[in-house]
Amino acid sequence: MQLAMIQDKIVPFEQLEPIYLDRGLYFGDGVYEVLRSYDGKIFAFEEHMQRFARSIEAIEIENVDMNDICSRVKKAFDTAGMPNAKIYFHITRGSGPRSHICEGNIKPNFFLTVTELPATDERKTAGICVITHPDLRWKRCDIKSLNLLPNVLAQRQAAKKGCAEAILVDEKGLITEGASSAFFAIIKKNLQTTPLGSNILPSITRKFVLKAAEKIGLSIVEKALKPAQAKKADELFIAVTTADIVPVVKFDDFIIGDGKPGKFTKMLIEEFRSFTK
Amino acid sequence: MQLAMIQDKIVPFEQLEPIYLDRGLYFGDGVYEVLRSYDGKIFAFEEHMQRFARSIEAIEIENVDMNDICSRVKKAFDTAGMPNAKIYFHITRGSGPRSHICEGNIKPNFFLTVTELPATDERKTAGICVITHPDLRWKRCDIKSLNLLPNVLAQRQAAKKGCAEAILVDEKGLITEGASSAFFAIIKKNLQTTPLGSNILPSITRKFVLKAAEKIGLSIVEKALKPAQAKKADELFIAVTTADIVPVVKFDDFIIGDGKPGKFTKMLIEEFRSFTK
Repeated sequence: MQLAMIQDKIVPFEQLEPIYLDRGLYFGDGVYEVLRSYDGKIFAFEEHMQRFARSIEAIEIENVDMNDICSRVKKAFDTAGMPNAKIYFHITRGSGPRSHICEGNIKPNFFLTVTELPATDERKTAGICVITHPDLRWKRCDIKSLNLLPNVLAQRQAAKKGCAEAILVDEKGLITEGASSAFFAIIKKNLQTTPLGSNILPSITRKFVLKAAEKIGLSIVEKALKPAQAKKADELFIAVTTADIVPVVKFDDFIIGDGKPGKFTKMLIEEFRSFTK
Repeated sequence: MQLAMIQDKIVPFEQLEPIYLDRGLYFGDGVYEVLRSYDGKIFAFEEHMQRFARSIEAIEIENVDMNDICSRVKKAFDTAGMPNAKIYFHITRGSGPRSHICEGNIKPNFFLTVTELPATDERKTAGICVITHPDLRWKRCDIKSLNLLPNVLAQRQAAKKGCAEAILVDEKGLITEGASSAFFAIIKKNLQTTPLGSNILPSITRKFVLKAAEKIGLSIVEKALKPAQAKKADELFIAVTTADIVPVVKFDDFIIGDGKPGKFTKMLIEEFRSFTK
């Protein structure tokens, strides 16, 4: 006989919903994606689904039918009927007794939410403040996994200082990315950002930002920045699926430019908009 | 209006059980403990509860009454009536909309299971095989958090090679600990293990192992080992709450000693037993 307890109530083990035994909860043994739509159209659907498939493969979750997942996402989005929606979903390895190694057959668990995004985003027009924070994450940040505690802790520190994002700095003193965003600096006519590798997420928004940058005549420099360089940059911004490009106007108490979103950043926001139509 | 989907079923957001919105699931935003009992008595209860309190504090989960948690654990153990029980429990920051930063008031979620441990453990008498694996974990392994994906992935690799544990090796080529255990080598009359720090869990079993080692006249050397040193050790073992001391007889295809649990390891198992009575 096994026994469970939820809050202060004892529950027979057999009566537990499988969700309580989800390996996502026990181990963060799962991967996720976030999509958004603009005016009724999901942005970069294929790219996100490909990245999701890569995450699933990287942690070896078996028996996932990607066509089926694509259909579920589309069905949920259609049903929600929200023109500007945020679609979050994750897959975990499944539910079972708590053991690092799965015993017997296990079926992946899928969970999704659709939420309406606000029509206007003040962060885009006013810009945000960011802090730097040590990058304490694991060595496979290219996998979009449910192990996000260091990201949560970094953002908590940012919030305590009235900032909207924590920019993570590795042991070598180099910026990797934001706790939940990619990070960019504009220095003269160069757009600089961390090169892709196992230490950052292969951001889909990043890919479109680079495309937009080329369009407006910026040169791309894929080289990690030091905080000292970022402080002196002409412009800074973060990129994140739910809000694409968000200007950074304050970096660790240093005012960037004139403390307002920079001209190239605004041009990039404009260019990005054309991709979403 | 928000919408959710569980597996392939659309569910109104309002009807979701709070567990689906648990930050433990979204972010691994929680901490856990594992206790065991020997013959009806929980071993090292205070030590485990103190470590749990430290983990809670480290990730800043608020509004946790540790006296209440202690009572719940004792009540569950008493109700289960299993002399040799494994008690697992975790606390997460709570349930709410998926956002790195909690919005509004949030109440921690507590979950516990009690499972019966087998009367005999073959691993203790026969010894186990282990592999080495890169330590890909985050930089705060002293916090017993729910972010355990790298541990799961390492143990999966071990299992594929017919091994029971993965011994993690950091970027400097030094052994930190096992994916779910502490690691020890006996070289001549020295017991060597990784010094405590943010890169390993402050194992409770480790503490009692060191106490047992002193009793049988071994000198303690708190210095990280290289795999090459471990391979040539006279004896190796891991320490884990559920099975205390488990001899290692094979390390990355190298037979340790004569391929059977070593004499000092057996003496330590015997000494450890005296602590649990």
